[in-house]
Amino acid sequence: MPGTANSIEFWFDFSSPYGYFMAEKIDALAARYGREVAWHPYLLGAVYKVTGGVPLTGLPMKGEYALHDIVRSARYLGLPFVVPEPFPVATQHAARAFYHLQDTDPALARRFALAVFRAFFVDGHDISSLDTVKLVAESVGVPGDELGAAVSADAIKARLKAECEAALARGIFGSPYVVIDGECFWGVDRLPQIERWLETGGF
Amino acid sequence: MPGTANSIEFWFDFSSPYGYFMAEKIDALAARYGREVAWHPYLLGAVYKVTGGVPLTGLPMKGEYALHDIVRSARYLGLPFVVPEPFPVATQHAARAFYHLQDTDPALARRFALAVFRAFFVDGHDISSLDTVKLVAESVGVPGDELGAAVSADAIKARLKAECEAALARGIFGSPYVVIDGECFWGVDRLPQIERWLETGGF
Repeated sequence: MPGTANSIEFWFDFSSPYGYFMAEKIDALAARYGREVAWHPYLLGAVYKVTGGVPLTGLPMKGEYALHDIVRSARYLGLPFVVPEPFPVATQHAARAFYHLQDTDPALARRFALAVFRAFFVDGHDISSLDTVKLVAESVGVPGDELGAAVSADAIKARLKAECEAALARGIFGSPYVVIDGECFWGVDRLPQIERWLETGGF
Repeated sequence: MPGTANSIEFWFDFSSPYGYFMAEKIDALAARYGREVAWHPYLLGAVYKVTGGVPLTGLPMKGEYALHDIVRSARYLGLPFVVPEPFPVATQHAARAFYHLQDTDPALARRFALAVFRAFFVDGHDISSLDTVKLVAESVGVPGDELGAAVSADAIKARLKAECEAALARGIFGSPYVVIDGECFWGVDRLPQIERWLETGGF
């Protein structure tokens, strides 16, 4: 489901803890205002190549702060969280699997996406591994081997590449990154502004 | 006033719009919980030399987003705001003037600091200029020429340098950066977490 004119876009990388927090919050928030959410996993690494960005946790001083802030933010938001090891990881298998499922069953794709986030940030499994992605798929009722074959198809690789290119072309550079009626919100800490925007139709 | 064990530390650069927003909020918030705030202007440029950081607005994609987010955040917080030109600017004169006033009259130093922020982010004056800093000082009752002489004294230069070095040594790298009982909060978007921390004594 590519989304409708009314839907909220939610861009994220499966390796992003703040993306996980938003994933746990955005659908319920949108539903309170009669809105749907179109989920768009993509690869921050592709963006960083252009912006010169680096993973937050690798930066001097900011990295140490960020790890602390992530753990505290999980508590603040009432969400279970562990710091996975390794972290961050590559997420192309999970993202491709999402788009494969999305094309036939959007609700299933959503359940799969949440299960991927929880496998990584609650159970600490290495979601960069295709085997892990297949196990997560099985946990939501998708045959793992079938999924494993699907994510290596050229068409699905091209699909994820196109999503990353679309994000870059539109200046979408972070995770989570939410677009509502053309208005952009970067970071789970923009939830209060997102809520006011939905309440008031813009402020 | 260097602060007491009970006081909240508020670190900022006078050129930081999010620092300005925090400056307008933090004293009233702290007062609701019986706490005082020790203000610490410092120079982000000195930090960036170590962290490799750059001003947010100079970054590809993030820069354009940030300018939009700053203006929206001002509306969200109910604060007057213009994007000054030039921006960002060097703030050593304003920071040194703050510490000069602080040593004799902390309340006056606070009024001066808020007046500097408003001169820059409400009235659009170039606060990198010593003449502007002197005019701001006069607006809060401090003779401008006296202040101008004071900020070029070696002792006050050393004082600001020591503040910047103390920040670096403690891993304080942003603006606004708030420390409560050893717990660190970076960004005005951490106000809700700061409030919960003050309410609950930690969460």
